[in-house]
Amino acid sequence: MKKTVSLKDIAAKVGVSTALVSYVLNGKMEGRISKEVAARIKAVAKELNYSPNQIAKSLKTNRTHTLGLLLADIANPFSSQIARIVENEANKIGYTVIIGSSDEQVDKSRTLIELFLNRQVDGLILSLPDHSEEIVTDLKEREIPFVLLDRYFPEIPCNTVAVDNYAAAKIAVKHLLDNKKSKIGLINYDTSLAHLNERLRGAVDICQGNEMVGLVRLGHIQEDVEAALKSFLANNVEAIFFMSNLLAISGLKYLNKHQIAIPEQLAVIAFDKTDAFDLFYTTITYINQPLSELGAEAVNLLNESIKRKGINKTVYLKAELVKQNSTAT
Amino acid sequence: MKKTVSLKDIAAKVGVSTALVSYVLNGKMEGRISKEVAARIKAVAKELNYSPNQIAKSLKTNRTHTLGLLLADIANPFSSQIARIVENEANKIGYTVIIGSSDEQVDKSRTLIELFLNRQVDGLILSLPDHSEEIVTDLKEREIPFVLLDRYFPEIPCNTVAVDNYAAAKIAVKHLLDNKKSKIGLINYDTSLAHLNERLRGAVDICQGNEMVGLVRLGHIQEDVEAALKSFLANNVEAIFFMSNLLAISGLKYLNKHQIAIPEQLAVIAFDKTDAFDLFYTTITYINQPLSELGAEAVNLLNESIKRKGINKTVYLKAELVKQNSTAT
Repeated sequence: MKKTVSLKDIAAKVGVSTALVSYVLNGKMEGRISKEVAARIKAVAKELNYSPNQIAKSLKTNRTHTLGLLLADIANPFSSQIARIVENEANKIGYTVIIGSSDEQVDKSRTLIELFLNRQVDGLILSLPDHSEEIVTDLKEREIPFVLLDRYFPEIPCNTVAVDNYAAAKIAVKHLLDNKKSKIGLINYDTSLAHLNERLRGAVDICQGNEMVGLVRLGHIQEDVEAALKSFLANNVEAIFFMSNLLAISGLKYLNKHQIAIPEQLAVIAFDKTDAFDLFYTTITYINQPLSELGAEAVNLLNESIKRKGINKTVYLKAELVKQNSTAT
Repeated sequence: MKKTVSLKDIAAKVGVSTALVSYVLNGKMEGRISKEVAARIKAVAKELNYSPNQIAKSLKTNRTHTLGLLLADIANPFSSQIARIVENEANKIGYTVIIGSSDEQVDKSRTLIELFLNRQVDGLILSLPDHSEEIVTDLKEREIPFVLLDRYFPEIPCNTVAVDNYAAAKIAVKHLLDNKKSKIGLINYDTSLAHLNERLRGAVDICQGNEMVGLVRLGHIQEDVEAALKSFLANNVEAIFFMSNLLAISGLKYLNKHQIAIPEQLAVIAFDKTDAFDLFYTTITYINQPLSELGAEAVNLLNESIKRKGINKTVYLKAELVKQNSTAT
């Protein structure tokens, strides 16, 4: 990259003062400066590829109007949908968003956060991988404005926007019980992430002991989902609750391939949805996460925290059941 | 955000020289400094939340080992898959990637590019929206290292990595003709983007005049795809070629809902695939874009361009036909 061009360089070339260049390029006092001079300054600035130094600017205003958004996995449709919403909401109130993806790795999360901070973002919206507690306590200690989105660490009080996963999972299982499905298979990730374990806890609390649980390792999703489904089917499970959209896609793939009739042979409900469901031969009942609200709340809470220190707020949003054909009786 | 802590602040607090602090924090000469002093400096640096100033560093080394990746729409599965691949490939050779999404808007693309450059990325990988020619010529003039990925502007020679869309579309239509489908419906975007128009050109060139074309407006995808399909079906079209994955998802949704039997009533082929296809009742024939190679080639070409000025290379990769049940005879 070329040497940075300064206002001084432009002033020298045009033969005016640095202050005048600054006025013109910042759009101030233009009426009081001759049009020719203003035009000449702009032309030279363009010619020299002048780029207003965001860092120098930010040291004065202390704000860059840039947010860092850290996703756990950009290739997950939940992450990419949320990213688009956060982007739109942030734009609405004058922020630009830069995005990083940690690929579910703690080290990569840390690297990206430091990179964002070194690049002077005003604050961070974070969906962190399993075992990221140290990252969160560290950011708190450093008094950096941030909001946890979707994924949270209940033992560390800090700005958090998430779905009430416990309540949502209960609603899903209650729907299955209401539809006379008594033996229920639950498929979740093998993780210590609170949002996923809250789903499992909610489901188990209402299942009355008639549940079977299949835990799926990250990186072995298809294989582990299939193993769980085989075992459920062998044990005459009547309904399956997939506790994430990717788990549901993997499971539906398998059920499709093996021509298990839904809902006749097996009822199916999913936590969260994806476009993919629309291609399935029957409509899928799911827990609808309020993605737009999640994104908007996260951006607004971060904005508040940037403006005023010491905010510590947790926002839990309700998810709703969308009843469709895959759980019909 | 708090005032930036400098080496000087740390030196003052520990009671040593700034140079000594710099040596310790940069991991130099540690053998020659007492362990106690080194430990004390590190402890104070941590206590004051010292963050090495990336910008100051970059001005010396002239490299930040950061790449900016600009996607046209992060919520499109093609974009998010490519992002994950670029990320992995860049990490392999020591780059961290920050990502922006333009939501198919030229202005937003420009804003994000300037934001990346102000934050001293070493170079850019860009998937630009329609009508971005000015952005490309401007980056060329400023001698900023960049690579166009997937989307290109043939009239502006610059580093480009893309699929040979013309050849790939020909392969797709030839497969339909070989399977005795003579009346073919082509569904594409209404756009001036070259990669999409090359697909259409390839298809039309081999269709022998027996094609019907449906053009779909961005922002009206579902509605326009449905209108095109209705008209194709009314005109006894025997096969449909969806020229992007989102177009295919929208189309399959409609065909699913209206219980059009595939391949018996209608053959279907898609350009690119998504996970969603796996949930469809029959397997979908598609043109497989070599995503991993696209990502790897883009990162490597950008890395070359960062190291050595004046590189101007176009890499066209082959896409392959994956024959499945949706075009079976």
